[in-house]
Amino acid sequence: MIPFNKPHITGRELEFISDAVACGHISGNGKYTKLCHKLIEENWGFHKCLLTTSCTDALEMAAILLDIKPGDEVIMPSFTFVSTALAFVRQGAKIVFADSRHDHPGIDEHSVERLITQKTRAIVVVHYAGVATEMVTMMDIANRYNIALVEDAAQAVDSFYLHEGQSRVLGSYGVLSAFSFHETKNIQSGEGGMLVINDPKLAKRAEIIWEKGTNRAEFFRGEVNKYGWVDIGSSFLPADTIAAFLYAQLIEVKDIQTKRIELWNHYKRLFQDWDCPRIQLPFVPEYSTNNGHMFYLMLENIDIRQRLIEYLKANGALAVFHYLPLHLSSYYKDKHDGRILPNAENFANKLLRLPLYYELSFEQQELIVTLIHDFFEKN
Amino acid sequence: MIPFNKPHITGRELEFISDAVACGHISGNGKYTKLCHKLIEENWGFHKCLLTTSCTDALEMAAILLDIKPGDEVIMPSFTFVSTALAFVRQGAKIVFADSRHDHPGIDEHSVERLITQKTRAIVVVHYAGVATEMVTMMDIANRYNIALVEDAAQAVDSFYLHEGQSRVLGSYGVLSAFSFHETKNIQSGEGGMLVINDPKLAKRAEIIWEKGTNRAEFFRGEVNKYGWVDIGSSFLPADTIAAFLYAQLIEVKDIQTKRIELWNHYKRLFQDWDCPRIQLPFVPEYSTNNGHMFYLMLENIDIRQRLIEYLKANGALAVFHYLPLHLSSYYKDKHDGRILPNAENFANKLLRLPLYYELSFEQQELIVTLIHDFFEKN
Repeated sequence: MIPFNKPHITGRELEFISDAVACGHISGNGKYTKLCHKLIEENWGFHKCLLTTSCTDALEMAAILLDIKPGDEVIMPSFTFVSTALAFVRQGAKIVFADSRHDHPGIDEHSVERLITQKTRAIVVVHYAGVATEMVTMMDIANRYNIALVEDAAQAVDSFYLHEGQSRVLGSYGVLSAFSFHETKNIQSGEGGMLVINDPKLAKRAEIIWEKGTNRAEFFRGEVNKYGWVDIGSSFLPADTIAAFLYAQLIEVKDIQTKRIELWNHYKRLFQDWDCPRIQLPFVPEYSTNNGHMFYLMLENIDIRQRLIEYLKANGALAVFHYLPLHLSSYYKDKHDGRILPNAENFANKLLRLPLYYELSFEQQELIVTLIHDFFEKN
Repeated sequence: MIPFNKPHITGRELEFISDAVACGHISGNGKYTKLCHKLIEENWGFHKCLLTTSCTDALEMAAILLDIKPGDEVIMPSFTFVSTALAFVRQGAKIVFADSRHDHPGIDEHSVERLITQKTRAIVVVHYAGVATEMVTMMDIANRYNIALVEDAAQAVDSFYLHEGQSRVLGSYGVLSAFSFHETKNIQSGEGGMLVINDPKLAKRAEIIWEKGTNRAEFFRGEVNKYGWVDIGSSFLPADTIAAFLYAQLIEVKDIQTKRIELWNHYKRLFQDWDCPRIQLPFVPEYSTNNGHMFYLMLENIDIRQRLIEYLKANGALAVFHYLPLHLSSYYKDKHDGRILPNAENFANKLLRLPLYYELSFEQQELIVTLIHDFFEKN
């Protein structure tokens, strides 16, 4: 059986975990947490980052840092993981769901402006499949209305936005950005996440919120002579064993990205060579790089997708659909304002993700494409 | 230098982490998470438990499960870690701080009833140093007023309440109870925690809140045919590598507890033999066992304590004070109703924790007590 995902191990994870244990500091903010922070900040040029126990937690930190309160409105795509919304709902926000683009699951940048009201406090863009949201339009809207822009970059590690001959890393646009290191991601630590703080004014408070609302970080730097409870917050910091695992992945990021992009391109070639009119291939706009996070197909309808999933499973490969649109979820449907979001529903019904992980071989990819070919011959 | 704490490694942590990695499932709720749940439920007879990324997160789950809302009041001791309050503050609660007993830092059970109002929704007891709160009185109050009782059992693993010849484990009294597996605790995984659900009616919703507000757990058990967003929640579940680490500790719980209690008793003997009138020893009421979590002294005042800390540090041992009372914190002092809590202040000013960890030797303990003896000769 070819699994949908297989968490990649670079080889030094256990060595670094063992070293963290030997150092005698395996709670949060130890040696490997600091090494990860430094490497990430240097590698991608972020102002500041803080590892978290999950991307959900990073998004919660963003919602707290932006002082999101009951009654505030937050705009985000409906076709996203539940955590994008959940983090803001926990602060009491009303979520205003936007539609996806017709050609890509990311937020339709031209649909956002009409959703803004006096109560809009934040816009969250989600770089689905590591493919950039159209940031020129989004930044323009955020600036004109003075609304905080947050990037949910859960899938977007090492992906870039291209504009006027320049490339700029995703996660560097938002006031705050959240990344995931869940085992399904390119770079992973089982569970894990990271908040990127691009607005220097928020950096000090971010540390406090990360450390259970205490000024512990300042205390250990000798900036205050005792520490105590100064703000809200939570225990957002991961164990240093998690950071040690992550560090082993981060030092291999180039190799991982090269390999995944190769695999992604191989799928693309195989499907292009076949040129099946009943299958639509993933679209990567000219303004985005591709980080090889996910290869998906768009099929004709939910029924054919379900039958293809079953056919592949019966023949040794696991392919999976993705999100149910959040505006149609049992938790939020009565809170949604009733707008129909046809593109979100379209991606929910027709999108199928194929196996894509470091150890996947070209031969396995060819087998999967052959199976899909056989399926369409018969169906 | 004798550190204040040294996280104990039982020996199989890396083996189990390695196995978790080999199993290919290192995100939450994998093999070792399930093993921990089973072992803990069997060992201590809890109805249900869920590992969390921290005790803070377990307390947040408790606050969410109890539907704590803005305006609700929650009674808890002021002399506790910030997380006890923070978790409820995040739900918008007003914290009504109670005083400690005069003879022990735990909540003064006789001070609670007069703090109850129409808005009181929960009472949180903290079993400081693993020593039980007086539960007969607390349960009686909770039952008479129909107020949820929550146990912050962060320090109280494997500790028991004794009543009418019976012993009952701490963490089994509250509707919900929170434990910590932070590296400073008897049983540890660097960062980590656990929610115990003693009210079966809350078990299903606890799983949902744990899994980002989705009914994913039911889906994987085949009880529903798709899963989606059904409630609030967060990503409360730890990576399975954390659970693997914890499992290596849990299977050695008897050995760990025996060793720590031996060390605790050795301190007690040494100080009793000395019988210094300027030092007050920790009090364990007749209704509580002692789980060897912490050995502390009560000194004459904050000044002598500070000088003793410096003396010990200069001579090779680290002893540390503990909480600043939360009602006096810069975050909460303006929200507190102004009541003076003399016992909480007393413990904040005079309590000193001595090194206590598995690898500590009797000889090191004797050295520490000799140093304290020398200090009092000179001061």
